[in-house]
Amino acid sequence: MTRGTFISFEGGEGAGKSTQIRRLAERLKADGADVVLTREPGGSPGAEQIRDLILNGDVDRWSPVTETLLMYAARRDHIERVIRPALDRGAIVLCDRFADSTRAYQGAGGEAPISLIKALEEQVLGGTTPDLTLIFDIPAEVGLKRALARGGEARFEAKGLAFHQRLGEAFLEIARREPQRCVVIEADDAIDAVWADVWDAVSTRLGL
Amino acid sequence: MTRGTFISFEGGEGAGKSTQIRRLAERLKADGADVVLTREPGGSPGAEQIRDLILNGDVDRWSPVTETLLMYAARRDHIERVIRPALDRGAIVLCDRFADSTRAYQGAGGEAPISLIKALEEQVLGGTTPDLTLIFDIPAEVGLKRALARGGEARFEAKGLAFHQRLGEAFLEIARREPQRCVVIEADDAIDAVWADVWDAVSTRLGL
Ligand SMILES: Nc1ncnc2c1ncn2[C@@H]1O[C@H](COP(=O)(O)OP(=O)(O)OP(=O)(O)O)[C@@H](O)[C@H]1O
Ligand SMILES: Nc1ncnc2c1ncn2[C@@H]1O[C@H](COP(=O)(O)OP(=O)(O)OP(=O)(O)O)[C@@H](O)[C@H]1O
Ligand SMILES: [Mg+2]
Ligand SMILES: [Mg+2]
Repeated sequence: MTRGTFISFEGGEGAGKSTQIRRLAERLKADGADVVLTREPGGSPGAEQIRDLILNGDVDRWSPVTETLLMYAARRDHIERVIRPALDRGAIVLCDRFADSTRAYQGAGGEAPISLIKALEEQVLGGTTPDLTLIFDIPAEVGLKRALARGGEARFEAKGLAFHQRLGEAFLEIARREPQRCVVIEADDAIDAVWADVWDAVSTRLGL
Repeated sequence: MTRGTFISFEGGEGAGKSTQIRRLAERLKADGADVVLTREPGGSPGAEQIRDLILNGDVDRWSPVTETLLMYAARRDHIERVIRPALDRGAIVLCDRFADSTRAYQGAGGEAPISLIKALEEQVLGGTTPDLTLIFDIPAEVGLKRALARGGEARFEAKGLAFHQRLGEAFLEIARREPQRCVVIEADDAIDAVWADVWDAVSTRLGL
């Protein structure tokens, strides 16, 4: 049985997930918590090598099904070697993207069959699912503009506005279907205003 | 609907698969056939990059489940970009290892759950399964000795004799369960004697 707390940050490109998750990690550490800040795809040495394959190169380098399998290979390594050991010792694990991103990017966005994604969730996650998920909601144009200004790995950013609009819809649909796990964060606001909502959701859930 | 013929070569390390598949490709080409000789893991540019991750590095670099997912990511790319296009135009595809190797190496040998492997076969192969599979049977000691003398990618060769004995058993079990698809080739014999059995099985199946 797990003693820790698993929190994932989800949502489209440039929504502010990485900005806010760093702030949350600092705040929880200042309170003395054992915090593991990690990300997907990646988060363990093997998964980071798979991340390189997924995020760089031509936009149609991998088909949606192949990409889904690579994501789950990376996720399994990350769970086995980082997330589960941290949860087992009682840490708070903050993960920048997790399984919902596969549903949105490869499922709704890329058209990998939902039957494949469900089979992988059942067979591969081994019950390691978040206790709390913050879904960052932002108009696709606003998020893409922020992400392009920032630069970096660009394979998904190259997929076009319609793709990113489907993503946003898919994340909101996940939040509607699992309201006990998910909290929607209005991300089209100033950093401090978004942070207030993030801290409110997390401190309520952790009982702080 | 597919017009080509898909033949896979399976069995443990050093059994002589690569030696015999090359000979078969030459023979069929000499007869004027459109032959595609390929291999797994790998066989397409993306899948060969995944192959590097799988076959090199520490022996416990990936867990059995992670390795299974990487194998299927490579397999999907290979099917989509090489095997299916070749079969669609009517070619004979000769594949040096295919899905049975995942059952044997990651399933029986590595203890990935059979439920995961079956789900991947159903969701990922998309019906692209061999018309004929030659299962090379050889005592594990004999095959390993040949493979070590040859050199090359050694991550699986490092797994020890008991692992390789489980593999041999697993391949024979597959042949017993699917006798219409599989022919067992006695591989602990001289190259020319093994070739006679290979050609017999293939020419019978192709009606040559
Ligand atoms: N509330 C905000 N208002 C304006 N700019 C922001 C806000 N939050 C973050 N940014 C800036 O937008 C860019 C993207 O933010 P960030 O990297 O946190 O997004 P992300 O959700 O992690 O994106 P990705 O999905 O691409 O990883 C960064 O340059 C960041 O400084
Ligand atoms: N019948 C045979 N008798 C003796 N040596 C053989 C025979 N067939 C192949 N060899 C040699 O054994 C080594 C392994 O053969 P080969 O590479 O064809 O096996 P393989 O089944 O493809 O192995 P792997 O699974 O490692 O790819 C090579 O050096 C090859 O020349
Ligand atoms: Mg980010
Ligand atoms: Mg070989």
